[in-house]
Amino acid sequence: MSKKRVITFGELLMRLDVPNQARFEQANAFKASYGGTEANVAVNLTKMGMPSKFVTVLPDNDLGRAARGHMQKSGVDVSDVLMQGRRLGLYFHETGTMLRSSNVIYDREQSAFAEAKPGDFDWKEILKGYDWLHWSGVTPAVSEQAYNLLLEAIKEARALGMTISVDLNIRKKLWNWGRKPNEVLPELIEECDILLGNEEHIKELFGIEECPYDLRSSTAHLGEVLTSRFTNLKNVVVTWRRTISASHNKISAAIFDEHNVYEGRVIDIPDILDRVGSGDALTSGIIYGLIQFEHDLYKTIDYAIACSAMKHTIPGDLNLATSQEIMAIVDGDNQGVKR
Amino acid sequence: MSKKRVITFGELLMRLDVPNQARFEQANAFKASYGGTEANVAVNLTKMGMPSKFVTVLPDNDLGRAARGHMQKSGVDVSDVLMQGRRLGLYFHETGTMLRSSNVIYDREQSAFAEAKPGDFDWKEILKGYDWLHWSGVTPAVSEQAYNLLLEAIKEARALGMTISVDLNIRKKLWNWGRKPNEVLPELIEECDILLGNEEHIKELFGIEECPYDLRSSTAHLGEVLTSRFTNLKNVVVTWRRTISASHNKISAAIFDEHNVYEGRVIDIPDILDRVGSGDALTSGIIYGLIQFEHDLYKTIDYAIACSAMKHTIPGDLNLATSQEIMAIVDGDNQGVKR
Amino acid sequence: MSKKRVITFGELLMRLDVPNQARFEQANAFKASYGGTEANVAVNLTKMGMPSKFVTVLPDNDLGRAARGHMQKSGVDVSDVLMQGRRLGLYFHETGTMLRSSNVIYDREQSAFAEAKPGDFDWKEILKGYDWLHWSGVTPAVSEQAYNLLLEAIKEARALGMTISVDLNIRKKLWNWGRKPNEVLPELIEECDILLGNEEHIKELFGIEECPYDLRSSTAHLGEVLTSRFTNLKNVVVTWRRTISASHNKISAAIFDEHNVYEGRVIDIPDILDRVGSGDALTSGIIYGLIQFEHDLYKTIDYAIACSAMKHTIPGDLNLATSQEIMAIVDGDNQGVKR
Amino acid sequence: MSKKRVITFGELLMRLDVPNQARFEQANAFKASYGGTEANVAVNLTKMGMPSKFVTVLPDNDLGRAARGHMQKSGVDVSDVLMQGRRLGLYFHETGTMLRSSNVIYDREQSAFAEAKPGDFDWKEILKGYDWLHWSGVTPAVSEQAYNLLLEAIKEARALGMTISVDLNIRKKLWNWGRKPNEVLPELIEECDILLGNEEHIKELFGIEECPYDLRSSTAHLGEVLTSRFTNLKNVVVTWRRTISASHNKISAAIFDEHNVYEGRVIDIPDILDRVGSGDALTSGIIYGLIQFEHDLYKTIDYAIACSAMKHTIPGDLNLATSQEIMAIVDGDNQGVKR
Amino acid sequence: MSKKRVITFGELLMRLDVPNQARFEQANAFKASYGGTEANVAVNLTKMGMPSKFVTVLPDNDLGRAARGHMQKSGVDVSDVLMQGRRLGLYFHETGTMLRSSNVIYDREQSAFAEAKPGDFDWKEILKGYDWLHWSGVTPAVSEQAYNLLLEAIKEARALGMTISVDLNIRKKLWNWGRKPNEVLPELIEECDILLGNEEHIKELFGIEECPYDLRSSTAHLGEVLTSRFTNLKNVVVTWRRTISASHNKISAAIFDEHNVYEGRVIDIPDILDRVGSGDALTSGIIYGLIQFEHDLYKTIDYAIACSAMKHTIPGDLNLATSQEIMAIVDGDNQGVKR
Amino acid sequence: MSKKRVITFGELLMRLDVPNQARFEQANAFKASYGGTEANVAVNLTKMGMPSKFVTVLPDNDLGRAARGHMQKSGVDVSDVLMQGRRLGLYFHETGTMLRSSNVIYDREQSAFAEAKPGDFDWKEILKGYDWLHWSGVTPAVSEQAYNLLLEAIKEARALGMTISVDLNIRKKLWNWGRKPNEVLPELIEECDILLGNEEHIKELFGIEECPYDLRSSTAHLGEVLTSRFTNLKNVVVTWRRTISASHNKISAAIFDEHNVYEGRVIDIPDILDRVGSGDALTSGIIYGLIQFEHDLYKTIDYAIACSAMKHTIPGDLNLATSQEIMAIVDGDNQGVKR
Repeated sequence: MSKKRVITFGELLMRLDVPNQARFEQANAFKASYGGTEANVAVNLTKMGMPSKFVTVLPDNDLGRAARGHMQKSGVDVSDVLMQGRRLGLYFHETGTMLRSSNVIYDREQSAFAEAKPGDFDWKEILKGYDWLHWSGVTPAVSEQAYNLLLEAIKEARALGMTISVDLNIRKKLWNWGRKPNEVLPELIEECDILLGNEEHIKELFGIEECPYDLRSSTAHLGEVLTSRFTNLKNVVVTWRRTISASHNKISAAIFDEHNVYEGRVIDIPDILDRVGSGDALTSGIIYGLIQFEHDLYKTIDYAIACSAMKHTIPGDLNLATSQEIMAIVDGDNQGVKR
Repeated sequence: MSKKRVITFGELLMRLDVPNQARFEQANAFKASYGGTEANVAVNLTKMGMPSKFVTVLPDNDLGRAARGHMQKSGVDVSDVLMQGRRLGLYFHETGTMLRSSNVIYDREQSAFAEAKPGDFDWKEILKGYDWLHWSGVTPAVSEQAYNLLLEAIKEARALGMTISVDLNIRKKLWNWGRKPNEVLPELIEECDILLGNEEHIKELFGIEECPYDLRSSTAHLGEVLTSRFTNLKNVVVTWRRTISASHNKISAAIFDEHNVYEGRVIDIPDILDRVGSGDALTSGIIYGLIQFEHDLYKTIDYAIACSAMKHTIPGDLNLATSQEIMAIVDGDNQGVKR
Repeated sequence: MSKKRVITFGELLMRLDVPNQARFEQANAFKASYGGTEANVAVNLTKMGMPSKFVTVLPDNDLGRAARGHMQKSGVDVSDVLMQGRRLGLYFHETGTMLRSSNVIYDREQSAFAEAKPGDFDWKEILKGYDWLHWSGVTPAVSEQAYNLLLEAIKEARALGMTISVDLNIRKKLWNWGRKPNEVLPELIEECDILLGNEEHIKELFGIEECPYDLRSSTAHLGEVLTSRFTNLKNVVVTWRRTISASHNKISAAIFDEHNVYEGRVIDIPDILDRVGSGDALTSGIIYGLIQFEHDLYKTIDYAIACSAMKHTIPGDLNLATSQEIMAIVDGDNQGVKR
Repeated sequence: MSKKRVITFGELLMRLDVPNQARFEQANAFKASYGGTEANVAVNLTKMGMPSKFVTVLPDNDLGRAARGHMQKSGVDVSDVLMQGRRLGLYFHETGTMLRSSNVIYDREQSAFAEAKPGDFDWKEILKGYDWLHWSGVTPAVSEQAYNLLLEAIKEARALGMTISVDLNIRKKLWNWGRKPNEVLPELIEECDILLGNEEHIKELFGIEECPYDLRSSTAHLGEVLTSRFTNLKNVVVTWRRTISASHNKISAAIFDEHNVYEGRVIDIPDILDRVGSGDALTSGIIYGLIQFEHDLYKTIDYAIACSAMKHTIPGDLNLATSQEIMAIVDGDNQGVKR
Repeated sequence: MSKKRVITFGELLMRLDVPNQARFEQANAFKASYGGTEANVAVNLTKMGMPSKFVTVLPDNDLGRAARGHMQKSGVDVSDVLMQGRRLGLYFHETGTMLRSSNVIYDREQSAFAEAKPGDFDWKEILKGYDWLHWSGVTPAVSEQAYNLLLEAIKEARALGMTISVDLNIRKKLWNWGRKPNEVLPELIEECDILLGNEEHIKELFGIEECPYDLRSSTAHLGEVLTSRFTNLKNVVVTWRRTISASHNKISAAIFDEHNVYEGRVIDIPDILDRVGSGDALTSGIIYGLIQFEHDLYKTIDYAIACSAMKHTIPGDLNLATSQEIMAIVDGDNQGVKR
Repeated sequence: MSKKRVITFGELLMRLDVPNQARFEQANAFKASYGGTEANVAVNLTKMGMPSKFVTVLPDNDLGRAARGHMQKSGVDVSDVLMQGRRLGLYFHETGTMLRSSNVIYDREQSAFAEAKPGDFDWKEILKGYDWLHWSGVTPAVSEQAYNLLLEAIKEARALGMTISVDLNIRKKLWNWGRKPNEVLPELIEECDILLGNEEHIKELFGIEECPYDLRSSTAHLGEVLTSRFTNLKNVVVTWRRTISASHNKISAAIFDEHNVYEGRVIDIPDILDRVGSGDALTSGIIYGLIQFEHDLYKTIDYAIACSAMKHTIPGDLNLATSQEIMAIVDGDNQGVKR
């Protein structure tokens, strides 16, 4: 197994879930867990056997420490997490089912992460010994400072020759600090080797209007457009989701590698337990596959889709599954019960 | 939005649910909530933006006050609820799944509502300022006094020129006080403008034997029979449910307006979370539509079916959904997650 | 019973409690309830038979609506609650026991209430028909706008000849918007008829250095100083608490009425279930007594202390107790079990 | 160990408890358990090593069967429980603490037990092979039929030469069927060998006005009065409870045996977990002691008080404690932790 | 109804379940229940109206007694359960969903059952009055002593002319004491009248290599092979399960009676709630049918499949369903809700 | 703050707690947590600011990994935990109150830890960079191999010049592998610098018969006897507990340093929440104080007693308290609520 090491940077939120599929107004308790797109990737990789580091900012209070402990529990390296600032970002989550959509209420403004400033991190020291930096479009959305911090990190990673991946993850409601995704992200993507996103986000961000309907062709098209524009880009992953209802989805993805498209299988997910983090699980699978499967892109894409499918069966943001479990799905080994 | 105001009259019960889909004998706790067909309609309308009044009788003890508070929480006007009598009606509920049916054990005899007497309410005062009275076939089933109380209310409402709607809701096990549905209900239906019921209940109550198989034709047939017999009747709504299993149903409905039948779409409900109150949700949708959609009966029937479908996704008797959420279903706007 | 009606104005927070007396880092769920010093007073009075109105600002999202529903459940009039702004103020609470203190983490900055602006309320309309306005020192601490809103309300209440009461409730950590309690509160207290506070807060706020040790004498001293300075002030209530441990307190209070001090009994509270809101319960008891007991200040002060003692036995912020229950404590009627 | 066998007859109720010491209006769930004074005695004796039989009537529905299963779980013989009738008696329970009393709301009218009729049981068959019949004052309070059923049982037991014990257990609110305790109980007590009751109940029932203050003397006085009046009576047990608060009691008891009074120790119970059933635990201890300790009445009374004290530490109606555990309390063997 | 009585012998385990479909590492609590293949059969039969006896060994500590009480609760005769030895066998269970398999971690070595020795039971006394002995392949797998104990029981049962049934239930991981299934089971099966197993287990155990694909033909083939080899064998039941995912299975079975094959219907189970014990439910249905349906093997097989299907809807190991409920499934009576 | 680093070695168990102070037979769920005397010390020190390493053996299954994750969550270094063997040791715990004792049922035989063998650890590598080794009398009790492993570790630690501390912690029931505490422990204590134990354990282990009654004098006596016998021993800590009831204890301790006795204060603990681990908390306080307080033994002993007192207020085995919180208790700073 390759010993390449991955580092991710982003915000960690407390997630407060209405229990038992009830609605917000029925809640007299919230289940508490922790997650965030980059945090999730670090945990997922660690759980699959690639110990990773997660860098963030958390308030130096009992809630911040609890959040950090939650990362530690999964074995993630939190030695560079900064404990400062006023509040922990939160989100409230109501789980939908069938034709009732899930609802998210973000409450993350003025968080410790949003208020951290460039210079707060010694990136050279932090990145030392790591091979891969992953970030998502959520981080620069949070605040101008967060964007600047990320820029620092990316530049340093590039200088160190690290591989850099980005998951576009565009959440329009978050972009409130002045500049918009298309004004900010291209500059950051310049330095990236791998880009992941769904068709809608990619088209919107880069002003691509026409696109073939099927996943293979659209991936080929978008992959060519992007790799021509961003010369460091080696792989473009286009993710696909068909929302039949809040509890029934179908998912797939395809990867472009400058020349070819490798399209994965479609997995049907008829009884979603928890969809949150399933995009991050896919990202984790891509990173894992690109590092461990030595250019077997078919295996990589199927592995990543299996990661994402698996996440839909696990409560919380984290894809608490081993690589053995994921490979069993890829291999179609379906026992129902393991004794 | 029309400011027409609705009042409902009926019994409010405490519902005691076995948690976690276990069986009665496995229960070491019961989830407690409150519901009743007319109470549910008042809450559903209020939640959809039409503040409504609910009239009932509750015992003047801590359980009665808790039940009243539960209605207040949803913004329903409870200022005319009478606090007297000995006990709160109850029902125990075991949630089935697949080929295991749900079970209901009623324990509502001798309740405060069943023992209230004509004269206990000043209907003229209570109905003042309201435009619509809704009741269901459960109310006159409860006791002779309840029947008489309802009769008083209906007569006063008619005198005041209010619209009156009835949901047949025939539960044979409840009719124990001497007279039977067909001896009692026709006299009450005389004064009604709108009638809702499923084909089986309508046929049985009115001794209709032949009926076409499909929903559109049966609605036409039943609608014609009923509107000829009951001259105040303007609309007949026939509801339809196909029980594939305890957790998988298909639902629909059609409305007859003296001349035409407006048949709604069929909605598939493959993973029922809580079916109780889904008929009341449909009723609420019909009342809402007739008031707010100005004679657009296609929109009304689809809105009502969407209400009913939505209820299957929400724990408890109440359809805690806004009219925006229901319209999103009617419009086929299915996001899966709203952030 | 007097029909005088009370209105309170302040912030309503969601309270998130670690269950089972565990510590923050052990929490995988939080119990959710709602409270705030002025909201608590409105609920407590309503529960004791004096229907009251609560005025606040809540975000127009599902959490804001849930908070409002919670007030409605207790029968409080919420018809003037403003639904606007971005977020609901929160606080996290860890319940201590014995020598482990309880911990509160506030997360209420930038709340909908803090960001409301003068002019947002039509005070003349809101106060119409009410006899008494109550506020606490928490409201002007929240933000400069909140302070200005309160000032508007107090001036209008004074113009309408209403009785005005204030509970000092000084929480230093909250005063972050520029001015300090002693720069702001005196101007507001000028218009008040009743002031409540503990010795420490009164001394600090008004720069009183010397004070007799026992409660009777200190109340006489502080009462005289304050009534001389604030000419509208008729009563000063000094509250007293001896903290033996986080779960064992003794409480008392005394009231000054320009001439005399009425000192209440000391109640021992050896097994505190929930201390939060016990000061608000005392305030509610004072308001209740001053209105209902026609100048029987001994009865008033003992009633108020009994309210506060009762609150220590009830989970959540609210003193869900009737006046009959409180009078039974005042009368020493201790049955242990009521069947 | 003596192999004497005990049979008890009475009603079994479902108990619905507000969790977490909250108030009724805060309950969104109830813990469900089962109990009743005679049922509790049968379970307690069985748990202490004397397998006993419990006779009652339960509705032949899932709730009745669950109640019966609960008795079976403890090893009690339920082979003569009659499954018939309409409803299971219920009671709702709110646990008080300190100066907040516990509250009980009975909902047991028209229960299957209340509606059973003389002739429903073949007492000769049921009592065969048993040595002791125990009943309490709750049974004849429930309904006239229940009284008659009990009378049948007592007469048959007397004819069979069985020992008969009664726990007065007078609950005035239950006596609604026409006759009052003092009109009914003396006739039943005529046939009894052992009577238990607190001073207040004994005095009231038998019109005894004067009574010495201390437990020893009052037991002597009451014992003499009762044994002169009821010639079969061999022992009178007077129970004593000092209610310092809802969560802090002191208890004791004394036993009179025609000649002497044997007064037990006083046990302080500073943190009551669940007081319900503690009187039944004491009764069980008396029966156990009279059978097993061969006339050692000091040991018997201390054993019975220890049973009662133990019950205050166990949730539910049942004293789930072995005789070894009780003897350890009698012997003052206090380890705190048993590993 | 036939009064034939069944006895089963095997190990009873405590089952510890991760709640809410979470993974082992997320568990901060485990739901506790009790089960074991032979125990399950005894409970299932009792619940369907055939009171049965269960024989096992449990440690004489509070956990062993709790396990025994759990059996008693269902009305099973536990009078011959031996209380001795050191520990209760356990298993931890994680419930899978969709493509995530369920996981079982056994922790049953050195259990009280595994360490019981031949001679510990007086089989002649235990079996007296019973007509049928059932055992499964789990029992001889547990330990050499357990195998010997079982051998004693089977021989005595044969001597008494009882019917003997076996469910192969081969769990390879359990066979650690030296001999393997094929060295041990044939000798025990010699004495059996009924054998149940799935195709895979039967083929492997008896070294059968070729087998037709469809259930009817394979049952015919396997049935003939087995009945020729084991001359006491009258019926061979072949069970069938198609695992579409961890939460979606299809099940069926067929029975061979020396001459013919009776194939049951296929039941689709799209939302498995709890699959554990569904094989035991099928076995119970076969025993029930063979005894109650007088050689109607089509009814027997469909009844057994319905039992198994029902079990998938009930949490825990036990098929808590009455024969009326099972017959309703056989008859296709699907109400969805029973009121 | 001193940077000295501590390492502990021992078994980590899963703890399964009956919830809500119920008895074992009432449990339908168990709360799951993890603890063990040496593990607890490592967590407590880490939480107080001294990052520590914990060495143990856990099975390489999901339960073992969950146990390890739990340690990681608290920041303890688990990089030398060995993942091998068959099962995780368990203990079941029933929390007593008042005169009902707590009960522990151990189920730890044949655990992965008990079956580890000398040579499994490279102690030189593991101990490198650490200053202090702590162990307890539980470790050599577990099995002969565990004793040998410990002996290896102690010898290596001594060779490296580390400080070694031992908490006697004698649990007679555990010593089942052949040799007894007094045959084994003295040899291990030879190498220790610090010994902790209660008077009873010390007397019994070393055959000391006479001992003064008061804590100061007994500590002087025992300290002198032990330091004369074990020449490396510098400090002897004698712990003291008065068990008033299962929920009310008083605790103290004294430390001997070759010349003097430093006796700590007595802390009253009237409402124990969780006593388990309170001895380990005291041990942690002693180690912390000896390292951080530079020979201020009065401060050390009061700090350790405060640690132990604090532990009684926290659910689980771990003393999740910071050194600031402990110092506040030492300083008598008792706020009741920290906002």
